[in-house]
Parts: sequence; structure tokens; C-alpha cells
Amino acid sequence: MSQESLIISIDAMGGDNSPKVVIEGLALAHQRNPKIHFLVYGDKARVEAEMSKFPALKDACEIFHTEEFVHNEDKPSHVIRNRATSMFQAIDAVRQGKAQAVVSAGNTGALMAISKMVLKTIHKIHRPAIITIMPHEKGRYVMLDLGANTECDGVNLAEFALMGSIYAKCGLKIDNPRVALMNIGAEEMKGKEEIHVASHIIKSTHLNLNFIGNIEPHEIPKGKADVIVADGFSGNIALKSVEGTCHLIMHIIKNNIKSSWMAKLGLLFMLGAIKKIKKTLDPRLYNGAMLVGLNGLSVKSHGGADALGFSVAVENAAQLVEKDFVGTLRRELENIDIDEISQEAYYEVY
Amino acid sequence: MSQESLIISIDAMGGDNSPKVVIEGLALAHQRNPKIHFLVYGDKARVEAEMSKFPALKDACEIFHTEEFVHNEDKPSHVIRNRATSMFQAIDAVRQGKAQAVVSAGNTGALMAISKMVLKTIHKIHRPAIITIMPHEKGRYVMLDLGANTECDGVNLAEFALMGSIYAKCGLKIDNPRVALMNIGAEEMKGKEEIHVASHIIKSTHLNLNFIGNIEPHEIPKGKADVIVADGFSGNIALKSVEGTCHLIMHIIKNNIKSSWMAKLGLLFMLGAIKKIKKTLDPRLYNGAMLVGLNGLSVKSHGGADALGFSVAVENAAQLVEKDFVGTLRRELENIDIDEISQEAYYEVY
Repeated sequence: MSQESLIISIDAMGGDNSPKVVIEGLALAHQRNPKIHFLVYGDKARVEAEMSKFPALKDACEIFHTEEFVHNEDKPSHVIRNRATSMFQAIDAVRQGKAQAVVSAGNTGALMAISKMVLKTIHKIHRPAIITIMPHEKGRYVMLDLGANTECDGVNLAEFALMGSIYAKCGLKIDNPRVALMNIGAEEMKGKEEIHVASHIIKSTHLNLNFIGNIEPHEIPKGKADVIVADGFSGNIALKSVEGTCHLIMHIIKNNIKSSWMAKLGLLFMLGAIKKIKKTLDPRLYNGAMLVGLNGLSVKSHGGADALGFSVAVENAAQLVEKDFVGTLRRELENIDIDEISQEAYYEVY
Repeated sequence: MSQESLIISIDAMGGDNSPKVVIEGLALAHQRNPKIHFLVYGDKARVEAEMSKFPALKDACEIFHTEEFVHNEDKPSHVIRNRATSMFQAIDAVRQGKAQAVVSAGNTGALMAISKMVLKTIHKIHRPAIITIMPHEKGRYVMLDLGANTECDGVNLAEFALMGSIYAKCGLKIDNPRVALMNIGAEEMKGKEEIHVASHIIKSTHLNLNFIGNIEPHEIPKGKADVIVADGFSGNIALKSVEGTCHLIMHIIKNNIKSSWMAKLGLLFMLGAIKKIKKTLDPRLYNGAMLVGLNGLSVKSHGGADALGFSVAVENAAQLVEKDFVGTLRRELENIDIDEISQEAYYEVY
């Protein structure tokens, strides 16, 4: 594939209000990055109807008709056997080398199952992980795993650290990303044994990571690390706790302002500041969780994302393709044998 | 012990700026609940000097001089061997039946280690857990374990559910508390095996709990459950994620308002609403994490808590004593054999 080509396959039928939101999202992404070409999988008539509103987008797209699509309630074990869905076809385009990344707002379990089966893990990586970009006080960081692996061992965590570091370089343009293990204490021997093992592996000079040790979740928003590594259970708990707390605080603020006319008056003076606050915390700007560790990138857009949200997921994927995330990871792994390093780490911990 | 007596032992030397903050906190607690009597352990001269400012408090206190106290950097393995510290003496007062609960703002690890060793777990409870009160949209809930047990099995989680439910009855005055297991999905088979086992045990009619199934962290602030049960690692991660997110949002709001004179002007109209918002989210009002499952209550006040924060921890302890949390738990356990119930649960899951 030439360096200039930037082709992303799209499952047009996933998420609420598809394919409308998906096509609108592509139009936005295309506006900001006209280099991206799209292979769009879905109901051709409906996709074309939506696309007719965006003539500029049309030239950047190739539409592939599929009769079927994955439903929200479909079981992963079921969808992996049906090659005819828009999701399966979009993922398979990456396997065939026709596209370098796939974006879908459909059923998460299905996307993960098909992606793992079709794209397969990169040689030397044991398990793929879900990664996303999050805001902190001074900028952005990445966190993984967010739920692909409920149980992880030290080797898995170390591989996540490596993938997260490369993601931060490619996706956040951070030169020497600070990598930390999420833990319930900053001290080295706190928490679970797999974290201690991971710590030993990550410190190995072969991995060449800028490892800063453990980090507790309340320290993350202060911007002390660029890559937060966790098992999929804890990472998911942390992510959803952040989400819930944002809603709770906004709910309390709104309720108290609504109940006072003075406060409502004050709000008028604050509209500018509120707009900026909303923009900083806008979840749409952090949309797009990526399954990394596979032979190709698979991106999950939030099922309820609007066009802006979907476009952000597409652009994050494009950024990683441009910076050759998968190729960089493969090259890094050439000189590393994490299994071998881990023998020593287990010896240290046990 | 008579129903009327309400005696709490206090480690006067724990936390920042002790014993000043501790004594000020007792004065506040005494003002609001004059029924409480205090056994105060610490440097008698310094304690008396602080107490001289609060003549009304003096009559409610008995001061016991200790030469030593636990330092922040002391290892738990070290402090459990020194009976002479104010912390050890205050905890031992509960074991001796002189007090019904102990409150300390000192070293968490030390408080837990001494409390476990001195007070011992209640018959039939395998592991104590750390519990605290948190705010949701419509009121308050309790969450446990927050870090006493890094690894938990299904039996531990089920015991936490029972203790949390009794806490919600005694401490939050909720008649039939809704109990939920924190998990990364609402579906029954999501997450870890210990959660599935716990789910089976909790559903047993012997436990007589109002179990509503799994809850994801972002649903917690909506007030869907009164008791959130988690292993100590995940619970701690969730708690600290909430804490970090609160700080992040407040940081972003402040920064954006500071940078606009219009917004600062608007702020003047909002002072009333902001006061209410601050009060709702004031961490001092949720101060006090309790170690439950022991023969007596051991309460940890935040090391940096001010007098109001310390008084809240004391009042939470008093509330649980008045409602006879420990006695209620003992009575409930008389007719329950969780180990026996768990055999069936393991059979269901494996």
C-alpha cells in the first residue's frame, strides 16, 4: 500500500440513526481531512440517499451493498458466522488490505469478536486491547485496556504498555510518552501480583519505555502520565466511573442553577465560558475506542454518537493510519521477546 | 452496655494538624449530638490545651495520656506490636467494651492492621471491608469494599452485600436497601467469576437481601442502588476515579471562568447557587470510611480532614452505634451459613 493512500472502511449500518449519522460524520471528516478515502458498506440505496446531500464526499467514497447488518442484540457467537453483514464486510476489507482501518458504531461485542477473528492478533502480541483518548488538566492521555480482557496477566499488561506508548506517539504526537500502571497505591508492592510482574517486564531495557511506575486514579487527571495501563475490568470500571461522575456533577450544577433566578441571570454572563467548558469536556471529542494489537485497526464509535462524534472516531483512525501505528508496533516487536523477559519478572515477584 | 450509653474512643494524634483539628471536630460533633461521650487518647497536655477552648465538650470527654503515637510512615507490621500508641489504645478501648466505636485520622494501613488484630472479625464473617457513604442524584448510597481486600471471592462479596445492606438500614435509614454488584456489564454473565458466584449466593432467600443484580459504574450516580458491592481493588479504583473526575471538572470550570471578566461578573449572581453546589459535593460531608465486619466499629477519617470533616466521621460512627450495626449483623448471621450457600453457588457457576 502506498504511503499516500489513506483508506478507511466504514460500517454504515451501525449505531443509532444509521446510516444518516454515519454519512454525516464522513462528510465532516472529509471536510477536515480530504485525503481520506472511504469504503462504505451497507444498504446502498439508503447510503446513497444520505450521501446525495454531500456531493464533495461522494467522490471520496466507494459504496458496497450488503443485504444484512449486525443488530444490537446479536450475540458475538452468531455474528462471526455471517460474512454478509456490513460490519463483517467492512472489517474484512482491512484483512484484504483494501483499507487500513475500519470504523463502526455498531454492537461492541460483535465488532470485537469479528475483528479478532478476521484480523487476528499481531505476531508476538497475546491479546488485543481497547484503547481510547481521555482529557486531563493539561492535555490528553490514552488508557487501555477498557474491557477487551476481564482478566489479564503481567505479560498482557506489559504488551498494553508497549501498544499504549506507540499509540501516544502516533495519535497524540507525544515524543517520549510517560507510561504508568493504574493501581490502588503508588508504592511498588501495592495491588495485584500481575501489576508487579508487569512492572518488572516494562522496566526491561528491551522495551525501551518511559515507565514512571504506578498511578492512582485520582492522580490521572493531573496529567502525570500519558499512557495508563490497566486490566480490562479495572479500566472499564475507571472509565465508567469518570463518565458517571461527569453526569452527576453536571446534574447537580444544573439543578441548583435552575432553582434560582439570580443564578439564571448570572448564567447569561457566563455563556462564553460555558461554551468553552462544554467544549473541553465534550464526550464527542473523545469518541472512538480502538481495538489495538490486531493486524489492522478496528475502531468502535459510540452507538449514540452524532455526526461530530463519528467524525472524531474516523479522524482518530486516520491519524493512526498516517503515523503507521500497526507497522511501528510490528517493527518494535521484532527485537522484543516479552515472554522471555517475563520469565525473569515472575522470578523477581514470586 | 446500656442502650443509652454512646461512647466513642478517639485517637487524638492522627491526621494533619492533630490534636487541634480532632478536638475541634469533637466540639462540633458534641454540639450536634450531646449524647456522645468520648474517650480521648493522646498527649494529655496538648489535648487539654485544645480542649480548654471548648468548655462544653470537656464534660463529655475522658482523656487518657499516651506517650506515643503512630506516624504516617510507620509500617503496619511495626505498629501492631506497639500497644503504647494513642491509636492502639483507642482501638483497644472498643475491644474492652469501654467504647463502641473508634475514630482515627491516622495512618490507614496501621488503623486497619491494629483494628483487625485487636477487634477480630465477627463470627462467620471471613473478611472485614471498608465502606463509605457517597452522594448520588437523589440522595446517598454506600459502597464497599474500598480497599481492605485486593482479591475477593464470591463469599467475601456476598458478605459485603449483607454488611452493606445493614449499614444502609442503620446509617442511611433506608428500609429495604437495593443491593447491586458493581460490574462492567448489566447482564448476569458479564465480568468475573467471583461476581457470578456472589450473585448466586446473594440471591439465596436465607440472606433476605433486596438484590437488583449488576450495576455499571456510570449508572451508580443515578441512584439506582443503595448498596454497591465490589472487591477492594475495583472499589478503590472507582472511588479514586470519582475523586479525580470531581477535581478535573472543577479545575476546568474555574480556569474558564477565571479567564473571562464576563464570566466573573456572572459568578456574582451565582454565589447562592454555588454555595449549594459546593455543599452538595463537599467531600467533608462524606468523610469517614468504616472498617465493618469486626467486633466493633473502626472509622478512618481522612488525614487531611478539617474539624467539620472529622465531626462527620464521628457522627457517622455514632449513628451506627445508636442503630446497633454490630449487634444487628451478629443477629442476622445467626441464621445464615454463607459457606454452605456458597457450595451451591459454585456448583451453578462452574
